[in-house]
Amino acid sequence: MKPSIPKGTRDFGPAEVIKRNYIFDTIREVFVRYGFQPIETPAMEDLATLTGKYGEEGDQLLFKVLNNGDFLSKADDQALQAKDSAKLVPSISKRGLRYDLTVPFARFVAMHQNDIPFPFKRYQIQPVWRADRPQKGRYQEFYQCDVDVVGSESLMFEAELAQIYDEVFQKLGLKVVIKLNNRKILAGMAEAAGLSEDRFMDMTIAIDKLDKIGMDGVKQELSKRDISAEAIEKIEAMLGTTELEALKSTFAASKPGLKGIEELETVFEYLNMGPTYNTIQFDITLARGLNYYTGCIYEVAVDLEAEGQENIKMGSIGGGGRYANLTENFGMRTNGSGVGVSFGAERIYDVMEELSLFPEDKANTLQLLFIAFDEKAHRYAFKALQQARAAGINAELYPDPARVRKQMKYADQRNVPYTVVIGDREMESGELAFKNMVTGQQENLQLNAIIDQLK
Amino acid sequence: MKPSIPKGTRDFGPAEVIKRNYIFDTIREVFVRYGFQPIETPAMEDLATLTGKYGEEGDQLLFKVLNNGDFLSKADDQALQAKDSAKLVPSISKRGLRYDLTVPFARFVAMHQNDIPFPFKRYQIQPVWRADRPQKGRYQEFYQCDVDVVGSESLMFEAELAQIYDEVFQKLGLKVVIKLNNRKILAGMAEAAGLSEDRFMDMTIAIDKLDKIGMDGVKQELSKRDISAEAIEKIEAMLGTTELEALKSTFAASKPGLKGIEELETVFEYLNMGPTYNTIQFDITLARGLNYYTGCIYEVAVDLEAEGQENIKMGSIGGGGRYANLTENFGMRTNGSGVGVSFGAERIYDVMEELSLFPEDKANTLQLLFIAFDEKAHRYAFKALQQARAAGINAELYPDPARVRKQMKYADQRNVPYTVVIGDREMESGELAFKNMVTGQQENLQLNAIIDQLK
Repeated sequence: MKPSIPKGTRDFGPAEVIKRNYIFDTIREVFVRYGFQPIETPAMEDLATLTGKYGEEGDQLLFKVLNNGDFLSKADDQALQAKDSAKLVPSISKRGLRYDLTVPFARFVAMHQNDIPFPFKRYQIQPVWRADRPQKGRYQEFYQCDVDVVGSESLMFEAELAQIYDEVFQKLGLKVVIKLNNRKILAGMAEAAGLSEDRFMDMTIAIDKLDKIGMDGVKQELSKRDISAEAIEKIEAMLGTTELEALKSTFAASKPGLKGIEELETVFEYLNMGPTYNTIQFDITLARGLNYYTGCIYEVAVDLEAEGQENIKMGSIGGGGRYANLTENFGMRTNGSGVGVSFGAERIYDVMEELSLFPEDKANTLQLLFIAFDEKAHRYAFKALQQARAAGINAELYPDPARVRKQMKYADQRNVPYTVVIGDREMESGELAFKNMVTGQQENLQLNAIIDQLK
Repeated sequence: MKPSIPKGTRDFGPAEVIKRNYIFDTIREVFVRYGFQPIETPAMEDLATLTGKYGEEGDQLLFKVLNNGDFLSKADDQALQAKDSAKLVPSISKRGLRYDLTVPFARFVAMHQNDIPFPFKRYQIQPVWRADRPQKGRYQEFYQCDVDVVGSESLMFEAELAQIYDEVFQKLGLKVVIKLNNRKILAGMAEAAGLSEDRFMDMTIAIDKLDKIGMDGVKQELSKRDISAEAIEKIEAMLGTTELEALKSTFAASKPGLKGIEELETVFEYLNMGPTYNTIQFDITLARGLNYYTGCIYEVAVDLEAEGQENIKMGSIGGGGRYANLTENFGMRTNGSGVGVSFGAERIYDVMEELSLFPEDKANTLQLLFIAFDEKAHRYAFKALQQARAAGINAELYPDPARVRKQMKYADQRNVPYTVVIGDREMESGELAFKNMVTGQQENLQLNAIIDQLK
């Protein structure tokens, strides 16, 4: 048979895994420095936990796992007769693959509420699965990196999450713009434009598309949703605001609007207490499509200007926000208010690859390859190899004294920076032929000197 | 709804994730030092890749993923009518969750054979899924840690894999016995006992049960498989051998037997060239149940005597061996011979927990908690917090100036080793109240001095 993998899934070879882990490790290190702790949840969740949480479209994109054994014996007969796939599912499948990390986190918090300290600061870096139609940059299996704190309404956390974004991207060497807004400011806009409360999400969803469809598109969208021309004009004017201060008079009559300004001012007060590396700015046009956000919202974009990439079009590489009650679906007793952000690891990978930001020395883990001329040299080299490894050097010996050309070809394929060649002369003198594979330079050195140089 | 997770799956809280990662990181570090490289494969594989590889029982334990959308529209009508679950599966499910890391690795090697260097040295640490009946210590989702080299017959790798076992368990602080045997020695035993070739696996499977059912049980088992009393007597005598040398005359007429001795002698020759920490010994009773092994085989057990735990019964915590052709199912062109071993991470975790081998300082990642008396102190503390983090200290500030008792309770729950309390007096003097939460000792120190002490 010809080997293949399911569409939308990927194998990762060594170079890719090493680069991906570089991103994950960088993110993880910052999370930990900020006091966040890791949790892991199972790949499979009860379908009852997952369904109804992601809208109708999301439910269709859930991967469902077939019950084991004679699953048809308990199948819904009516659904079988009618060949109604959707209706049959609950009777033949109890489990699904997790679709994101937010719902499993909410389920985790509710389930373990008596065993965890609040505020609970957790991070989670695990794959998720979605039956999306595969296309460039969109996969059926991909990693999410989420960091959330639940059980506190302190705006300090809003500031810290922006700092985490700032620090991670500083460490990765990628200049970004961290955009902040607040759902209460959007509520203020809706009020100031005279919209009724039930049109709030309509407005928000339209504004969320600004990047993709432009202001004219947003206006059409608003108009399609029966928002009056007068209101649209007011919204457009407000969307031009860049300073919080300027909004205060506009929102003079809107309690949520003023509250939103106050919250963002507090967040920026925290942020201004220390240095930041990237641009962190209020962006009134930031909306986020999800309906569970209730306070501050975030989005991170590559700073295309700073990166000299003005002509590239690129989606966001992170986002998040505050939600009033994460765990209400799971019967949580304590305060379920929280705030969290997510890193788009797959996109970050693509951008870093595009801009050649992965450090060279991270690309290869093997430091030294021993090459032996004959069987006797091979045994000699095996001893030397053990000394190098004991000194903490990542090293290997070609497994047999094959033709030197073959061994050198392997060295090239492994992209190893240094080789040591051992034959009769080297064994006699104890001076080994130590070669820098990048410069081609070669010198004869004692093993100890080689080890010292590589350490 | 009451939150729950599927039977046989687990949530891991912070303490567990940190300990599990300590095991994985230790294993990974040694793998890399020996020149092995990471790969990752998707959780879902084509069912065609998985089925038929694990025997009939294994096929039944595969988790199958339901095709998305209107899966019944393409369902096998006959199977539906007959309510034949097994027959229906191929028409409604194309994908399954990986059952182990060996088959995906074989598929990976065959699929990427033109892009990878041979010998290909890979490691893989990922979860696998099996629909086993859950019981103590047996889960439906668990991690495997596999390290294999494919494309070389050099016995150096056999020695290196034993060294890897030795070094990992040394680092974990767990004394083990690493047992080595060779399938060719078992073949020699079968020949010397006068068994026909087709009885070889019968004999092997019976011997594999020795630990569980004892010698009498093995003899009964052999007898049940129609092996003569005379042959059983010979086998029993040979199973008492502890020295390779002693087997040479027994195997004088058995070519595979002598070859097996020669191979193991070479492996031990490599191993004797350097120091080892754990016992590595030839064990003629080691058989391994899997039929694809063709050369050396391994098993690792806790050294109960050294650990002072003679009375505990405990299964193996690692195993593996050489296989003639990993990739034959996937139409591989190049040399598919390889050798690999696996670490039983879940059992290692349980043993280390039982013997309290996890280092204390790995148990908590948070080093310092700031506690503020009032709003003003909170802002002051937020600045101090940023300095501590900038110095690389994992630190946090309780999110608001709540009652000190409440903040201290949180410090206890997080098990943080140090706190800094800040109020008016501290802000005035710049000397902060720095408390060791283990000893209860407290001193007033400048922030810089606190940072220096924690670094």
